[in-house]
Amino acid sequence: MSVQQLESWDAARLAAWCNPLLADVEAALSRWVGIDGPPPLGDAMRYAVLDGGKRLRPLLVLAASEAVGGEPQAALRAACSTELIHAYSLVHDDLPCMDNDVLRRGKPTVHVKFGEADALLAGDALQALAFELLTPGDGSVADAVQARLCRLLALAAGSHGMAGGQAIDLASVGLALTEPQLRRMHQLKTGALLQASVEMGASCAEGVSAAAMKALREYGAALGLAFQVVDDILDVVADSATLGKTAGKDAENDKPTYVSLLGLDGARARAQALLSDALAALERSTLPDTAALRALAHMVVDRDR
Amino acid sequence: MSVQQLESWDAARLAAWCNPLLADVEAALSRWVGIDGPPPLGDAMRYAVLDGGKRLRPLLVLAASEAVGGEPQAALRAACSTELIHAYSLVHDDLPCMDNDVLRRGKPTVHVKFGEADALLAGDALQALAFELLTPGDGSVADAVQARLCRLLALAAGSHGMAGGQAIDLASVGLALTEPQLRRMHQLKTGALLQASVEMGASCAEGVSAAAMKALREYGAALGLAFQVVDDILDVVADSATLGKTAGKDAENDKPTYVSLLGLDGARARAQALLSDALAALERSTLPDTAALRALAHMVVDRDR
Repeated sequence: MSVQQLESWDAARLAAWCNPLLADVEAALSRWVGIDGPPPLGDAMRYAVLDGGKRLRPLLVLAASEAVGGEPQAALRAACSTELIHAYSLVHDDLPCMDNDVLRRGKPTVHVKFGEADALLAGDALQALAFELLTPGDGSVADAVQARLCRLLALAAGSHGMAGGQAIDLASVGLALTEPQLRRMHQLKTGALLQASVEMGASCAEGVSAAAMKALREYGAALGLAFQVVDDILDVVADSATLGKTAGKDAENDKPTYVSLLGLDGARARAQALLSDALAALERSTLPDTAALRALAHMVVDRDR
Repeated sequence: MSVQQLESWDAARLAAWCNPLLADVEAALSRWVGIDGPPPLGDAMRYAVLDGGKRLRPLLVLAASEAVGGEPQAALRAACSTELIHAYSLVHDDLPCMDNDVLRRGKPTVHVKFGEADALLAGDALQALAFELLTPGDGSVADAVQARLCRLLALAAGSHGMAGGQAIDLASVGLALTEPQLRRMHQLKTGALLQASVEMGASCAEGVSAAAMKALREYGAALGLAFQVVDDILDVVADSATLGKTAGKDAENDKPTYVSLLGLDGARARAQALLSDALAALERSTLPDTAALRALAHMVVDRDR
């Protein structure tokens, strides 16, 4: 095991790794999203996606692809596709019939700016675009990789993934969930897409061992849950300006959270335990260079927004 | 050219061809839709899809696949995927922020029965499921076919297809569209998915000639537009009980239609002209057996609901 793998990147090292990749993702999204669509729809799609967001899912895709030596063109498309699914879910989540939120990433939400109908359609079109990006039709991505990426993304987005988790979330308002029930909800609602991001990145190469793939999946699962635990903590401790979205919504909406279940200290301890799980999974992967994946796990747990 | 190709099937012959295929599609949808999902979501998905609808898109997929000797397992999955996209679009279309319709296929719409939030999520999950069905992950469909099917479906569903057409439709209420503008809207809104259904069926075989593929695409385009012209006619002349949805909505909503643009007789003449175009395209395909595709074109134009 290399020394590089065991040491943690500091913020500057992480930024040096992230920034060129983020620039690639932004450029690709800008080139691919909402172009030549009917103006209100295309504009709403671009508004929902561009110039905002941590791009955590794309970074996970790219880090996992790097770790296995994945094909960069496939990885960039996969990275953007995960962000489109995430962005569409936020647009629909913010609608009045769901969370009825007016602020996202410090800006008015899509339906506030474009109206509910175009927000609905923009979300729908973003989901379709995600699968379009994964299937370029020009031979630039191997057919087997296209098929694998589409399957992973579809499973993560659908009723056994994100949409299913949101349905459980809706049905859970005001209920006292047990911890296993809360975990299940979050594994679907946010965990599935985060985990799929890791798996999609790892699917951009051929010949990844089953053991490495399993370890990466476990890394993704731990990181996905850690992300949600931290989200619950930030909803309590951060202010709306820092978060870029309305803080304190969970308590206001009487939603079960890790903080309501474990308390603030308990939730923080849980986040640290999940970070340890994620790092241990990376060691089990025996991949030679997982430094970026390690750094992203730290970033997820240490973030303040 | 065979005699069979040139003669038209009567209703009994069409039914004899359709019925076993429709039974396969229903069985497959029932096996695949909303299974093991969180109960309200899974139930809403099944309610939206099962036991209703003409299944025109699946029939087009299966007829086109038959015409080119496509792989039946791929064709069945493609057939179901087009129906899922169609069903999800109806669920979202019926929402209060869109058409605000309460009756569909003679039953309360999904949001009336399950609430707006679960209707929104059910539509989202149905779109994801469409791509999941196209990528079985068990080797039963060739990777190249999976990739091609996903691409065709994504393009037909997104901002350059169905969702784009709906956005134009939204923006066109109360406007006096020219005929090219109206045609463009319908080519996207309903035509793209109908045309894609034909192309997806034809993509279930290898080695289809470019000329045949082009002819089938033209058949799909003509049939897709004919479908919408007839829809506009039926909205005026049929009653809600026959249609299974609210009749007279277009005029009530001040929507531009082929009837408002061409008059009832003009719209009927246009539908017949498009039927001729579709049949001529099938002859150009030089495929040996396009009888089912011919019969479906007649069915689309002659239907009363």
